[in-house]
Amino acid sequence: MEDTICAVSTAPGAGGIAVIRISGPEAIAICNTIFVPRITGKDLLSQKAYTLRYGSIRRDKELIDDVLVALFRAPHSFTGEDTVEITCHGSVYIQQQIMQLLIESGCRSALPGEYTQRAFMNGKMDLSQAEAVADLIASTSAGQHRLALNQMRGGFSHELKNLREQLLHITSLMELELDFSDHEELEFADRSELSTLATHIETVISRLANSFSVGNAIKNGVPVAIIGETNAGKSTLLNVLLNEDKAIVSDIHGTTRDIIEDTVSLGGITFRFIDTAGIRETHDAIENIGIERTFQKLDQADIVLWMIDAADASLQIAQLSEKILPRSEGKQLILVFNKADLLTDRQFKPTDLPDNVQSIFISAKKREHIDELQDLLIQAAHIPSLSSNDVIVTNIRHYEALTHALDSIHRVQEGLSANLSGDFISQDLRECIFHLSDIVGEVTTDQVLGNIFERFCIGK
Amino acid sequence: MEDTICAVSTAPGAGGIAVIRISGPEAIAICNTIFVPRITGKDLLSQKAYTLRYGSIRRDKELIDDVLVALFRAPHSFTGEDTVEITCHGSVYIQQQIMQLLIESGCRSALPGEYTQRAFMNGKMDLSQAEAVADLIASTSAGQHRLALNQMRGGFSHELKNLREQLLHITSLMELELDFSDHEELEFADRSELSTLATHIETVISRLANSFSVGNAIKNGVPVAIIGETNAGKSTLLNVLLNEDKAIVSDIHGTTRDIIEDTVSLGGITFRFIDTAGIRETHDAIENIGIERTFQKLDQADIVLWMIDAADASLQIAQLSEKILPRSEGKQLILVFNKADLLTDRQFKPTDLPDNVQSIFISAKKREHIDELQDLLIQAAHIPSLSSNDVIVTNIRHYEALTHALDSIHRVQEGLSANLSGDFISQDLRECIFHLSDIVGEVTTDQVLGNIFERFCIGK
Repeated sequence: MEDTICAVSTAPGAGGIAVIRISGPEAIAICNTIFVPRITGKDLLSQKAYTLRYGSIRRDKELIDDVLVALFRAPHSFTGEDTVEITCHGSVYIQQQIMQLLIESGCRSALPGEYTQRAFMNGKMDLSQAEAVADLIASTSAGQHRLALNQMRGGFSHELKNLREQLLHITSLMELELDFSDHEELEFADRSELSTLATHIETVISRLANSFSVGNAIKNGVPVAIIGETNAGKSTLLNVLLNEDKAIVSDIHGTTRDIIEDTVSLGGITFRFIDTAGIRETHDAIENIGIERTFQKLDQADIVLWMIDAADASLQIAQLSEKILPRSEGKQLILVFNKADLLTDRQFKPTDLPDNVQSIFISAKKREHIDELQDLLIQAAHIPSLSSNDVIVTNIRHYEALTHALDSIHRVQEGLSANLSGDFISQDLRECIFHLSDIVGEVTTDQVLGNIFERFCIGK
Repeated sequence: MEDTICAVSTAPGAGGIAVIRISGPEAIAICNTIFVPRITGKDLLSQKAYTLRYGSIRRDKELIDDVLVALFRAPHSFTGEDTVEITCHGSVYIQQQIMQLLIESGCRSALPGEYTQRAFMNGKMDLSQAEAVADLIASTSAGQHRLALNQMRGGFSHELKNLREQLLHITSLMELELDFSDHEELEFADRSELSTLATHIETVISRLANSFSVGNAIKNGVPVAIIGETNAGKSTLLNVLLNEDKAIVSDIHGTTRDIIEDTVSLGGITFRFIDTAGIRETHDAIENIGIERTFQKLDQADIVLWMIDAADASLQIAQLSEKILPRSEGKQLILVFNKADLLTDRQFKPTDLPDNVQSIFISAKKREHIDELQDLLIQAAHIPSLSSNDVIVTNIRHYEALTHALDSIHRVQEGLSANLSGDFISQDLRECIFHLSDIVGEVTTDQVLGNIFERFCIGK
């Protein structure tokens, strides 16, 4: 991996400025051939690391842009290689021209995630940290951001390192015992001490593996289904929730945001709204196949918001209860009585509803009691309040590796109870270490790396 | 204008990295309160200009991101003020969080173009150069890019400065004459010399004003109408032309581009395709009002591409000639005989067509002879090949000011011929200078400035 790569590292499209990043052994030399410093004699070859220089990019005599050039020298850069960052005017045309010129001058266009992959290959970070870089860039909520940042900064790696050290400690005792296996009476590894240690390791791996359900909800959003008759105000509510979110964004940012439709961040938690068709009011159409499909979508949800026209509540509950309640078992069900502003008598209380059901009166149209509904959603999401030091697994690859590690450590525990010989137990210990090493990328194949980094954007 | 402003300066949305720019007297002090350098003790206050520092952005103890901070000190920055540029991970959430933190810490969110406006106010550039910054960022073709870059680098300003110096020279001679007006025989300004100078100035201003038609075509695109019967292959051709353009972009850039639909850059010239409805083949529907409207659209075009099914050429020409030919007078008309691959006999030649008409046989579907058609389009655009030193007016505000200046200099010329007294002529000279000064922003009102900079993107 000795070629020099280049890519636009800022978001695609036109902006005030754009940054093109060049990394590799020839980064400084190549840039020096196309960069003309404003003050003559100040070429890039002699430029100090961590400094900026003003000048222009030229193809022969033709001016392409006035730019700022930042210079980093190996190993003190993101990739660990010599790196140049060119800040140019953010015209798409200029970005293309500079990229073209760099390629003509000997650079190669970078693959997705290739800068981060090089940082990993050069030992600047382990694989779980590298994966967190992509998560960090994709983060759109406080929760996602906190988990990705903690992982990128090595919180998870540190936890894994502790585990592996403990496992290696047991293993080395075990294997020392094997070396002296002729002396049957010899037992370097105290079996009860080993058992205690294995239990501790099992506890930690279990905790990490179990954290994936929370981590996954934070990373991919808590799935919420809004269900109800078409005129119950389903889409009005969704718009109100979406707008609250967008308002926060546009106040601060002043630019458009790539919102994935129907994803809302409330209280730092991302909620992902599952698209369900409204149930038409024609009472005899309940058996309709299309509507049945809507009910089936509830299976994907962790939280079900059942929108009910408050004026017509008894009837709607009577009609839909037997469809919705069984499918909401084990989920959080919130009855949302909408159009409550039109209701003179709010004394209506649904009865005979299971324990997992909460209810609230709102007016989506008048934006009344939306805050309370948001609080209910946040509570229902069951996301524990996390400190920035909590290690939460968010990546399915890590989850799978932890599950395998857990299987191995269970076999170790069983072996210890069954008083199996050290070589059996040692093999399971090695397997457990292998799976944990897989997470940080110590035993990873090129194919696995390819799968991981192709998910990245170009330029990172 | 003493507050400190902040904005995301890179393109909106998520990218590998994003740059947030802070400019103003408190830029360094404010950033210092939220930035924690990786190496303790290295705070921003003591950081040298034109250097980078690695560290993190924190709200109290809470980590927001690991960042690089670039520092510039007044007047050696884009705005001429103290400036800090924070390069963070390109997550939208992180961009928002850092912006929010900066605002909480005393920054104000920058208005569109406010950095460039400050650069203008602080004398880093004149107004025509500031306007070129927006043009440069918006440039998507070689022509647009070259004109914007030349204007930003001061090519136009230099031309105007020369003109104004010459005008001031005449004016001062004129006004010296006025001071001594008691002595009627005194004539400091030699009238014939003045006349020669006025003619020269008139020539230069005329040339600049006339360059606007080329400049406008380059900046906003050469308007092209493709007209023809629906099945003539109009949209196939447009797709072929658009794809040629897009292919170039995606090869180099690897990211999506904000293409304004139906704008194609060929040979460095932007062509803007005017949307015209196809003419249905029903022969009796020619009189239809909707189709009449299509013909009217030809008025907006500089170039008319008349798509004709080659197999049916005689008939189509016979049917449409009397509609299309009169409306194409003074324009470039290109007869495009499409589906030429299906034609066994290509000997067909249209006769009785005016001089401004060219013709070409192509196959849009098979992409045959598309290069030749592109060459015809480029020729028909009549854009002179420009060197990077040519001053071309692209801005309608400048064009208007030049037109007014031209009126004034014409009055000066008339006054000189009519042997009018110096005070009349002097007044017209002053007016001419005023209009030229308007272009570089020496006499501009806040309202004019507001109109100019609100067109900018935020962050520039």
